[in-house]
Amino acid sequence: MSEIIETLRALPGVSVTDTPEDMAGNLIDWRRRFSGKARAVVAPDSTEAVSAVMRACWDAGVPVLPQGGNTSMCGGSVPDDSGTAIILSLSRMNRIRSIDPEDDSVTVDAGCVLQVVQEAALDHDRLFPMSLGAEGSCQIGGNIATNAGGTAALRYGNMRDLVLGIEAVLPDGTIWNGLRTLRKNNSGYDLKHLFIGSEGTLGIVTGAALRLFPRPAAEATTLLFFATADAALKTAATLRAAFPGELSALELLSRSEQDIVARHFPDRALAMPEGTGWTLLVEVAGAGTEADLQDKLMAALEAPMEAGDVLDAILASNERQREAIWLPRHSVTEANMHEGMGLTHDIAIPIGKVPEFLTRADALLAEKLPDATPVVVGHLGDGNMHYIAMFTREFWAKLDDPKVFTKDVGHLLNDIAADLGGTFSAEHGIGTMHLPDMARYKAAPELAMMHAIKATLDPKGLMNPGRLLPAQ
Amino acid sequence: MSEIIETLRALPGVSVTDTPEDMAGNLIDWRRRFSGKARAVVAPDSTEAVSAVMRACWDAGVPVLPQGGNTSMCGGSVPDDSGTAIILSLSRMNRIRSIDPEDDSVTVDAGCVLQVVQEAALDHDRLFPMSLGAEGSCQIGGNIATNAGGTAALRYGNMRDLVLGIEAVLPDGTIWNGLRTLRKNNSGYDLKHLFIGSEGTLGIVTGAALRLFPRPAAEATTLLFFATADAALKTAATLRAAFPGELSALELLSRSEQDIVARHFPDRALAMPEGTGWTLLVEVAGAGTEADLQDKLMAALEAPMEAGDVLDAILASNERQREAIWLPRHSVTEANMHEGMGLTHDIAIPIGKVPEFLTRADALLAEKLPDATPVVVGHLGDGNMHYIAMFTREFWAKLDDPKVFTKDVGHLLNDIAADLGGTFSAEHGIGTMHLPDMARYKAAPELAMMHAIKATLDPKGLMNPGRLLPAQ
Repeated sequence: MSEIIETLRALPGVSVTDTPEDMAGNLIDWRRRFSGKARAVVAPDSTEAVSAVMRACWDAGVPVLPQGGNTSMCGGSVPDDSGTAIILSLSRMNRIRSIDPEDDSVTVDAGCVLQVVQEAALDHDRLFPMSLGAEGSCQIGGNIATNAGGTAALRYGNMRDLVLGIEAVLPDGTIWNGLRTLRKNNSGYDLKHLFIGSEGTLGIVTGAALRLFPRPAAEATTLLFFATADAALKTAATLRAAFPGELSALELLSRSEQDIVARHFPDRALAMPEGTGWTLLVEVAGAGTEADLQDKLMAALEAPMEAGDVLDAILASNERQREAIWLPRHSVTEANMHEGMGLTHDIAIPIGKVPEFLTRADALLAEKLPDATPVVVGHLGDGNMHYIAMFTREFWAKLDDPKVFTKDVGHLLNDIAADLGGTFSAEHGIGTMHLPDMARYKAAPELAMMHAIKATLDPKGLMNPGRLLPAQ
Repeated sequence: MSEIIETLRALPGVSVTDTPEDMAGNLIDWRRRFSGKARAVVAPDSTEAVSAVMRACWDAGVPVLPQGGNTSMCGGSVPDDSGTAIILSLSRMNRIRSIDPEDDSVTVDAGCVLQVVQEAALDHDRLFPMSLGAEGSCQIGGNIATNAGGTAALRYGNMRDLVLGIEAVLPDGTIWNGLRTLRKNNSGYDLKHLFIGSEGTLGIVTGAALRLFPRPAAEATTLLFFATADAALKTAATLRAAFPGELSALELLSRSEQDIVARHFPDRALAMPEGTGWTLLVEVAGAGTEADLQDKLMAALEAPMEAGDVLDAILASNERQREAIWLPRHSVTEANMHEGMGLTHDIAIPIGKVPEFLTRADALLAEKLPDATPVVVGHLGDGNMHYIAMFTREFWAKLDDPKVFTKDVGHLLNDIAADLGGTFSAEHGIGTMHLPDMARYKAAPELAMMHAIKATLDPKGLMNPGRLLPAQ
């Protein structure tokens, strides 16, 4: 058992931690919902050191769990209870390797924190658009492993769309350098896309070449208030038509979510007009001046306001106001943790089906789970609805089997999504939490191909076992 | 030998052609550079019929070559000389299955001609942005198999970025229905991306769900004239900064290419200012009015014109003028066929390296191949340069071994691209033509993974054998 630890300790550029106290933070997720055991936390400081660690584990048959910022929502970044795996932490690989503003690209270690990459881009007057709540601690490697979505996906795409090339270490320690910055490269199967979203089950991504964008000359941000989700969706369609290619955020919150934020962070609360059932944060970014964009935004909203669809609108006239509008949105995960036990679902449906989904989900909750409060955090622009069934801690404490309950609630809601041509996992990934959903919702030929690929590229089954793919 | 033909003939919804006359058009590519033999051309009329054909071929061990519009530039769509394969033509599967403008998506048979899909989108006031010279005959399935690029890739991405979901028939006849229209779907390995660009070597794509876009409110098109490629690149950088997200074309032509078009299609020729070495077609599409966009375009060009970088500019003030500016660009492949024997290279390099690439390629041609005229057709926005070594037919006729000569010229130029972090195959794919380049330029771990995946998903090696992957 300790032989592998001694082997790893002897490798240059590798630090090894194996006391319970020092490993504690690596063995539980930040929401404290998933925990496990591990032999050691191993942190190499270079691609070569990762390769040496992987080779040693391959030779010894030791499972490897790659860990970035440990901000998974699905139990993807903590080990299981067997205690057989080592955690391979990318935290020491945190350098910006190079940045080329002319080529609109940056090449980074996988352990770079997302916010560090955003800031490096801004230093060169460029934009790295990936943005999500955990950006101060999540790492690029984790964003790649889960194909992160976030609030700017509407305009700039998911992580997949922002990755030009990757460097990865394969299960046997082989280094694959695919770090190109090309926009076009049709030379064989696109292995990069196979690794993106594979949650560390095929190898470890150690570096990435990422796309940068020009910083938009101007931005305009507004918060709209609606009585119904239908009215919000109708207005969103109007805005999509008015700003082709310029909309950068369409973030929907249910009144229940705004109320939760107000309850736990009163200083972040926004005044709402009477009858508000929903809010929609709209951000537009483009050429020209801010005043022009704001005028255009207000002009586009004239008809929906006259029709009574929009109850009211707050237009941010400076950066402070913009932050105030965004703050409740950025506070939802933290506020929900204070509120109670929220079962967050990560559903995506075709955009036109959003109202039907919400109507059916609310009705089902009212019928089957009267103790739940429906809370919605939606990326409306891409049909991605985080539909949350919120329970009190008291209710939760009385459950016989919270795991089974969680799974059952998931199936109830995900069944509706599936029926509408949707998915149970839009942007958070599978981890361990969604394994039962993989078996339930994925087509048999698709699962069979995934298992075949996994068996081929990780023949000893050492990479992040028990994640992503349900047992066959 | 004829047993499989009888089996296929008996299948419902399958037409089989096996006379030399009827097959002739399927056995040679449109530029008449690649040809081969086949047992039969088999055209199913539905996904189920494709499945039945694949199952029969799987059982009989008969290789299958999928064929769309047969417009490959690399010999990817015609069979080899063995005559063992059947050609599976998608031409009868040409229905638009459904279109949903609200969801910005359309679902089509793989045999739909690209232009038909473009027109269906326009009928619903939407844009399907893929656009390339062969759009009147190439099929969606071929665009997916090769991950087509084209002239709008700068703004809308390659085919990969336009595909939301696919339906494919696997080598043993299994139908995989992955036809979702979701923008986000992180549920296991992204098999869709594995099939896109796989050139029919893993299975046959039979249907696709594609992204649509709002039609831009306005477009502005201009043709710029430059003395040097450097000046064109500098101006392109200025335009990229001025129009973040709005540039939809940056098409570079060398003077030699404009001259070739003028020689063979005099009525398509444009007058050029003295000293023109390069032209750059710029198209901008966005919100607002056409007049606004044109003003903005001219304002952005003021500095480069004053600096003397831009010799002159033609601004299209109506659709007829726009077409006149595009016409030489759309005529290059046809004109080059008239001109002589053009060895087209499909190179991409990081954008900042374009001038260095052109300088080195020109110098190398002058030194090693004085009989060649350098001709350049470049998608400047994404660093994709079709660098063409043009030879006279007389020169070509005297060559001992044109195939070896072609390969050698390719290596000379592709070596420069590789040295600059580029690729030998940006958007045309591999086919048979680039097989020697795959072996020369792709990293060993990457080739090994590709071979492993191929062996896993196509264990009998029946799908488009001898394409994409070099022999091990």
